[in-house]
Amino acid sequence: MHIPATMKALILKGDGYATTRTGAFVDTLEPFLDYGDMPVPKPGSGEVLVKMRMASVNPSDLFFIKGEYGQARVKGAAAGFEGVGDVVDGAGFYAKALHGRRVAFVGGVNGSGAWAQYVTVKAALCIPVKKAMRDQDAAGHVVNPITAWAMFEKVKDSGAKSFIVTAAFSQLGKLMMGLAKDEGIVGIGIIRKESQVAHLKALGARHVLVQSNPGFTRQLAALMKSDKPRFLIDSVANQLSADIFAMMPAHARWIIYGKMDDAAPTLTEPGQFIFMDKKIEGYWLAQWFKSASLIDKLRTIRAVQDRFISGAWKTEVVATVKLKDAMADLPAALKLGDGKVMIAM
Amino acid sequence: MHIPATMKALILKGDGYATTRTGAFVDTLEPFLDYGDMPVPKPGSGEVLVKMRMASVNPSDLFFIKGEYGQARVKGAAAGFEGVGDVVDGAGFYAKALHGRRVAFVGGVNGSGAWAQYVTVKAALCIPVKKAMRDQDAAGHVVNPITAWAMFEKVKDSGAKSFIVTAAFSQLGKLMMGLAKDEGIVGIGIIRKESQVAHLKALGARHVLVQSNPGFTRQLAALMKSDKPRFLIDSVANQLSADIFAMMPAHARWIIYGKMDDAAPTLTEPGQFIFMDKKIEGYWLAQWFKSASLIDKLRTIRAVQDRFISGAWKTEVVATVKLKDAMADLPAALKLGDGKVMIAM
Repeated sequence: MHIPATMKALILKGDGYATTRTGAFVDTLEPFLDYGDMPVPKPGSGEVLVKMRMASVNPSDLFFIKGEYGQARVKGAAAGFEGVGDVVDGAGFYAKALHGRRVAFVGGVNGSGAWAQYVTVKAALCIPVKKAMRDQDAAGHVVNPITAWAMFEKVKDSGAKSFIVTAAFSQLGKLMMGLAKDEGIVGIGIIRKESQVAHLKALGARHVLVQSNPGFTRQLAALMKSDKPRFLIDSVANQLSADIFAMMPAHARWIIYGKMDDAAPTLTEPGQFIFMDKKIEGYWLAQWFKSASLIDKLRTIRAVQDRFISGAWKTEVVATVKLKDAMADLPAALKLGDGKVMIAM
Repeated sequence: MHIPATMKALILKGDGYATTRTGAFVDTLEPFLDYGDMPVPKPGSGEVLVKMRMASVNPSDLFFIKGEYGQARVKGAAAGFEGVGDVVDGAGFYAKALHGRRVAFVGGVNGSGAWAQYVTVKAALCIPVKKAMRDQDAAGHVVNPITAWAMFEKVKDSGAKSFIVTAAFSQLGKLMMGLAKDEGIVGIGIIRKESQVAHLKALGARHVLVQSNPGFTRQLAALMKSDKPRFLIDSVANQLSADIFAMMPAHARWIIYGKMDDAAPTLTEPGQFIFMDKKIEGYWLAQWFKSASLIDKLRTIRAVQDRFISGAWKTEVVATVKLKDAMADLPAALKLGDGKVMIAM
């Protein structure tokens, strides 16, 4: 296959970290990205070159391009963490074995990003995609679905009968509710809009509470009594999260996997760590990839792909934007809300 | 042995919990305790009657008598959690085996307290005391020394090379520094007074920082770089604790075992739970007694007693107050500071 010398990409304008924090949204991409030409990256030792089909847009991408994510930007590199494409080059035993395969990945940490026509990825991080899986499911099946699966396993393995998800209308929230229903575990979703209640229940949530409703605290207190949720799966980490955690029963674990609100939470009941054995911890997919066993990873990836192929999970895509139109169209697409936005190459 | 029908005790005036929170200090005991007569408690099934020799006064006792501890007060019951005495009665196999033995215990949760001439304790919670151990070491060797030992084991077992202790001039802080020195682990003590630095270093602390010093933050930042402390052993849980935790390196664990300051801490860097794998958890001796294996408990108790008998640990007693004088003398004795206060029967 002919590999050109240059390619189109969405290129980072900023370097390192920003000093401001404004959150996972964009009104315009101009301050952060350029659409332009750059050299096609060369795969290093143990890397493959992937010709991109489709990339997904996650909150982490938006934090990252703004310099507000836990990893430093490299000015002049392509943005984008996650996507799917075809392996067209690469040296080394495993890289060669992947030639011609469709793979999904989370990359973008070595200075080569997924919002481009080509990307280099460590061969060991490539996830071969089963033929029956659609590109739009494959493009975003690592960050959210594998996180959802792995965090749900944590809940299930602990023997908990119930858990709470904040910002539960996110893709991750929806995926976890489907798993919860199938496993007979009570999923409690906290959301912002009344209009989302029915859909989240249809996807498997047993209880859905709207955080702005006047009866919210009373309803939540009742569920704490009846269902004794032991996990708070949280991507917001603001005062509401801290207050929910303080209401939870003994042995509650607050798992922070995202920080969508910049407000710093105050722990009003630190004595609960002592007398109620409560815990706060984090979850980061990159850490899971480092620490989980190969068997666990393969088992999880297979389970996640099978769930999409069977239709038990479906990626709810609200917009697919072309790479060449992304500067103009992506901000508006992200405001459509309630579903994923994809970038097609 | 003749057991009288009534006894002297410091009797709780309040019931349940207080609605206010003022902390682990008392200017006067009048609002909380009466010195008076009450029936000698009868040991129930599996309990022993202990004729008290000496009780220790811990911050948890002060929180408790004020209704600010994690356990409800029983009005009319004797106060006091911890002490040493001789078993004089009790039915059941193990209770009978303890007759005549000197035992230490943490009790006071079944409505019978240690600040009295007699107390009933579950036989299973009695810790026989080796002959060579002095009463003043035995009277307080459960709450602080066993907590210090068990928390230090947590640090050691994790492979950490360094840890931080707040309020490090407490008995617990001193005990942990001795263990740290013996095991070649770097103990970093945070204290309030310059005058305590030399003594804490003599007891084994490698570094001692005075929190009010102008150079405190800079010194601490330097130690974070050079020693990479992984544990924050904390009995304060205020904003200073939270700020220290935020300065700590990846994988840091904040272990809260007390709450000496009522100010609620704000977590300024929740992203660290995700990207730096930080954790907050609690430690409560009662929980350890429930969850540790019998072997672990026996091994720990033996090690703690041997450490006192050998002189490696010594209880620094600043005052021993007679039970009959406690109402008048205890508040002033507690203000002598920098050591334990005991109540002798």
